[in-house]
Amino acid sequence: MTVTLHVCTTCRAGEPVGDGPVPGARLHAALAAACCDGFTVVPVECLSACTQGCAIALTAPGRWTYVYGRLGHEDAAEIVSGVLAYAATKDGIVPWRERPEIFRKQSLARIPPTGETP
Amino acid sequence: MTVTLHVCTTCRAGEPVGDGPVPGARLHAALAAACCDGFTVVPVECLSACTQGCAIALTAPGRWTYVYGRLGHEDAAEIVSGVLAYAATKDGIVPWRERPEIFRKQSLARIPPTGETP
Repeated sequence: MTVTLHVCTTCRAGEPVGDGPVPGARLHAALAAACCDGFTVVPVECLSACTQGCAIALTAPGRWTYVYGRLGHEDAAEIVSGVLAYAATKDGIVPWRERPEIFRKQSLARIPPTGETP
Repeated sequence: MTVTLHVCTTCRAGEPVGDGPVPGARLHAALAAACCDGFTVVPVECLSACTQGCAIALTAPGRWTYVYGRLGHEDAAEIVSGVLAYAATKDGIVPWRERPEIFRKQSLARIPPTGETP
């Protein structure tokens, strides 16, 4: 069962446009570099959470999907620990106290699994 | 292919606790009453979008998932029109100008389809 971490790569997180990569691209680069067995990091052009960026979406077939926001590249290690905890569950629901603080405090939404196939 | 509209039934939308149903329950009741062929309305206890409630999540296997917020029972008809437009697409992406205003302006997040089976 594959766990996917979608990362919005176009998010500017309210920063003015500059010469370097936007905050979303920096977050994606940090997560791709930190990535390990157990989940896949997938870049997405816009998760439509622009006022709460940078944003990520954590999903897997048959599990709850979670969206988190107000993140930056400096959060990469904490995000990875949260994703690995998610990957270790059957339904995506990590016990509250075992979630990283950014997952407890920066949830934008969660969506139930549908249990259906395309 | 089944389209599911998840409705958070526990959302208080910032209102004080009273005797009647909470705003999320009222929104669910309005959508269930307005529901028609083409999609299923499913109540959920908390979509974790509490500061942006009432919230709904629109999903179908193989399609983008959308989460919308700051909704009330008075939006039921507009929500239904948006869900039917979503149901008429293959990938869940409705052309921008054909989306109801509340879907254009009150997006909390969107998540790509994974194309995988549980």
